[in-house]
Amino acid sequence: MDARTPTQSLTVMTDLVLPSETNPLNNLFGGELLARMDRAASIAARRHSRRITVTASVNHVAFNRSIPLGSVVTVEAKVSRAFKTSMEVYLDVWIEDRESGLRDKANEAIYTFVAVDETGRPTDVPPLTPESTLEIERFNAALRRKQLSLVLAGKMKPKDASELKALFV
Amino acid sequence: MDARTPTQSLTVMTDLVLPSETNPLNNLFGGELLARMDRAASIAARRHSRRITVTASVNHVAFNRSIPLGSVVTVEAKVSRAFKTSMEVYLDVWIEDRESGLRDKANEAIYTFVAVDETGRPTDVPPLTPESTLEIERFNAALRRKQLSLVLAGKMKPKDASELKALFV
Amino acid sequence: MDARTPTQSLTVMTDLVLPSETNPLNNLFGGELLARMDRAASIAARRHSRRITVTASVNHVAFNRSIPLGSVVTVEAKVSRAFKTSMEVYLDVWIEDRESGLRDKANEAIYTFVAVDETGRPTDVPPLTPESTLEIERFNAALRRKQLSLVLAGKMKPKDASELKALFV
Amino acid sequence: MDARTPTQSLTVMTDLVLPSETNPLNNLFGGELLARMDRAASIAARRHSRRITVTASVNHVAFNRSIPLGSVVTVEAKVSRAFKTSMEVYLDVWIEDRESGLRDKANEAIYTFVAVDETGRPTDVPPLTPESTLEIERFNAALRRKQLSLVLAGKMKPKDASELKALFV
Amino acid sequence: MDARTPTQSLTVMTDLVLPSETNPLNNLFGGELLARMDRAASIAARRHSRRITVTASVNHVAFNRSIPLGSVVTVEAKVSRAFKTSMEVYLDVWIEDRESGLRDKANEAIYTFVAVDETGRPTDVPPLTPESTLEIERFNAALRRKQLSLVLAGKMKPKDASELKALFV
Amino acid sequence: MDARTPTQSLTVMTDLVLPSETNPLNNLFGGELLARMDRAASIAARRHSRRITVTASVNHVAFNRSIPLGSVVTVEAKVSRAFKTSMEVYLDVWIEDRESGLRDKANEAIYTFVAVDETGRPTDVPPLTPESTLEIERFNAALRRKQLSLVLAGKMKPKDASELKALFV
Repeated sequence: MDARTPTQSLTVMTDLVLPSETNPLNNLFGGELLARMDRAASIAARRHSRRITVTASVNHVAFNRSIPLGSVVTVEAKVSRAFKTSMEVYLDVWIEDRESGLRDKANEAIYTFVAVDETGRPTDVPPLTPESTLEIERFNAALRRKQLSLVLAGKMKPKDASELKALFV
Repeated sequence: MDARTPTQSLTVMTDLVLPSETNPLNNLFGGELLARMDRAASIAARRHSRRITVTASVNHVAFNRSIPLGSVVTVEAKVSRAFKTSMEVYLDVWIEDRESGLRDKANEAIYTFVAVDETGRPTDVPPLTPESTLEIERFNAALRRKQLSLVLAGKMKPKDASELKALFV
Repeated sequence: MDARTPTQSLTVMTDLVLPSETNPLNNLFGGELLARMDRAASIAARRHSRRITVTASVNHVAFNRSIPLGSVVTVEAKVSRAFKTSMEVYLDVWIEDRESGLRDKANEAIYTFVAVDETGRPTDVPPLTPESTLEIERFNAALRRKQLSLVLAGKMKPKDASELKALFV
Repeated sequence: MDARTPTQSLTVMTDLVLPSETNPLNNLFGGELLARMDRAASIAARRHSRRITVTASVNHVAFNRSIPLGSVVTVEAKVSRAFKTSMEVYLDVWIEDRESGLRDKANEAIYTFVAVDETGRPTDVPPLTPESTLEIERFNAALRRKQLSLVLAGKMKPKDASELKALFV
Repeated sequence: MDARTPTQSLTVMTDLVLPSETNPLNNLFGGELLARMDRAASIAARRHSRRITVTASVNHVAFNRSIPLGSVVTVEAKVSRAFKTSMEVYLDVWIEDRESGLRDKANEAIYTFVAVDETGRPTDVPPLTPESTLEIERFNAALRRKQLSLVLAGKMKPKDASELKALFV
Repeated sequence: MDARTPTQSLTVMTDLVLPSETNPLNNLFGGELLARMDRAASIAARRHSRRITVTASVNHVAFNRSIPLGSVVTVEAKVSRAFKTSMEVYLDVWIEDRESGLRDKANEAIYTFVAVDETGRPTDVPPLTPESTLEIERFNAALRRKQLSLVLAGKMKPKDASELKALFV
């Protein structure tokens, strides 16, 4: 399979915050944003793999800014690293100010998807070749995140997670 | 107010067709697509005007292709012409084939929005300067469409709609 | 197939405007109204044809009045003209004042549906015989609208659209 | 306050059964039908009283027929009896066969609503004058149902519920 | 089939009141609560019978307290009596005060479900053995309610409904 | 403020997987499960703090099992550790087999919430006293997770995260 670039999987989902998605402070529910990001990330993974894709995991997500009712929210998703049958997808979430037209970063998030066939069995995905400096940085960090994930799941010993361990010693 | 370009209002909304949006043939309901396009177009109009925007009208929309459950649908909206307080927004709708990665035009649509202040009163919007050949073509056609709309609403006599009349005589 | 009257397809859909359907000014989203009208019109077309019906197009729709949260909205749909496999459906939308009990016209809209069999292939529909003065007027105008639609789609030359052309010369 | 007739509050809500409303057998969820009937009945009560109305109770509802995905369902609601600040609303639910065009009764239901002012306090409603035989029959039965409701709530002694008691002795 | 206890079917559904579920007074719609209770009760019936279950009827439900937007609502459902193929499910609905942490009864409701096989045909369910005083009381009352339901449906003569009749004479 | 136990915040949310929540393989969308867990966890945090609570972050969540349409899903949330103004909430997700009645763990997840006042400003929360062995284990691990979160956010140096560092050296 030919390698693809992150740009080839870029998925942009711009939409309003609707009244049915807000909490008692009239801000977007964290859970609703997680659901939107899941749909955008699954499309990016599908564009990279051209397969049905299912969510395997969500990495740590911090909600740094509240997003008020009526905001315009843009979720941008790109595959950041491809493994054998799985893909890490990196998301950037922006909100924009109506009057100034400026946009601010509201969140980042990282989801992992597995490509499956029609029966739900994992299938191989093409490799990813990062291009920009940011894409290369996220590509490299993806390996440390995978090790951390394996360590937390008890499937890898901390001492074998070389890239990750290097952070602490 | 400084003129803006269509690119400055470009709004991209990529999302899945969910089971709750499909008709008995398992295709996206026409009405659901109209609602998605309304949200995307209202964001484009808001990006151009930096105001609250409300739907004034929908032009003729033809549904040429059915869009099956699970499809990835991309709605792209750009302001195509600005009038005094209203804006015409042109939408292109694409669906993409998962396996080939190719995308096909599913629909075009044209919505008109009015910019309003917090009390709902119409306010002026910046002019639009089209750039590409397609943008210029749509900009010119927008005037004919506005005339047609005024004629259909009985607010302009057919004989005064010079650009429109030129089509028939 | 025996001819049917518009009354035989009359579809009435009265419902509240719910909080999940409103925009930042607390009025019904244009797109939500388009979706409701699509469902009502598809039922009218189905009652006329006794077939599965799919949206073919939406004619020009003007949103003249905003419809606030909590309003009672009544959508009335009737087939206004039947062609070979398609039907034009005319919709009237009313909102009513709670205290006076009076109702006002909020919108009109025109949708076109195609009757299809279980595989999605177009099938013939019964002719329509209009009865009231308003039904006859809408029946006649439907032909002009069809010509306009064919002209806009590039499937008919403006000079061959006799009924439509008569408006301008 | 002038008396009103049941016809003046007649509310017709025709809509499709959508995929998001069905249970594992692909039939309309009982709970979804209860929610639709609640909205239709609240509109009928509001049309009679011209007040905000809130659900006070639902009488016994039997689900005799399953309603499959894609069905056209018509809910018809009319006020059947007015008390001091409350109204009984009687609902008939119909489904229609697409091919024959015939419609069958799927359900009946009885809801009670209270008219309230903007602060939520109960306010008086106009009396109801039934006209047709069926309306008179339902009007009379409404009193027995109110007694039964008071008995079940422990607010009336069974021996004082004369109309109700007459059924058993 | 071995008898089961009410506790074995206990179903707890705690959730927020979301903005899309509220009426013009910003309280939970009666119809939405009926839909939630239907889902909780269907799960309790399914846990008792281990079958697909469909709503057969809803008993009288009184809405004694309004439930404001943002409330935490707990629906608790337990099978209260098993008949041959049907089950009565008793529901208690609680709302809790955020600041004091205290909870109050908002409603009670009684639904009846039928267990069916994959083709929708009724199938036998296990007997129920009530344990607590409240469970025994509800178990006994269930028989009277079934008689009332049969009487109201014209399937039992009032004079044969011995347990029910005893209330009035 | 008096300390509270995890049991005092236990929140149980049992519900069906509805058709509108499923992906093309007819399984619950990862994003929908994230949204349900967010609501359940926010209620647990609110029960502990008796304050409005907003999502601060979601820890790593792995989706180990697909959850098919029609499943009964139980989300159980308990506060696992209280910090100054924030709380970690630990969630266990179960699905049950209809025929055997057995339940299996589908997921675990960890969310963090901040307690805020009516203006959105963080406020202090009561301490938590874990009781069971599992609660104590999760309470201790919560500190390591907080350190990891601070390290990942660049707000703590890896060498100062003593508990976390101990894992790797």
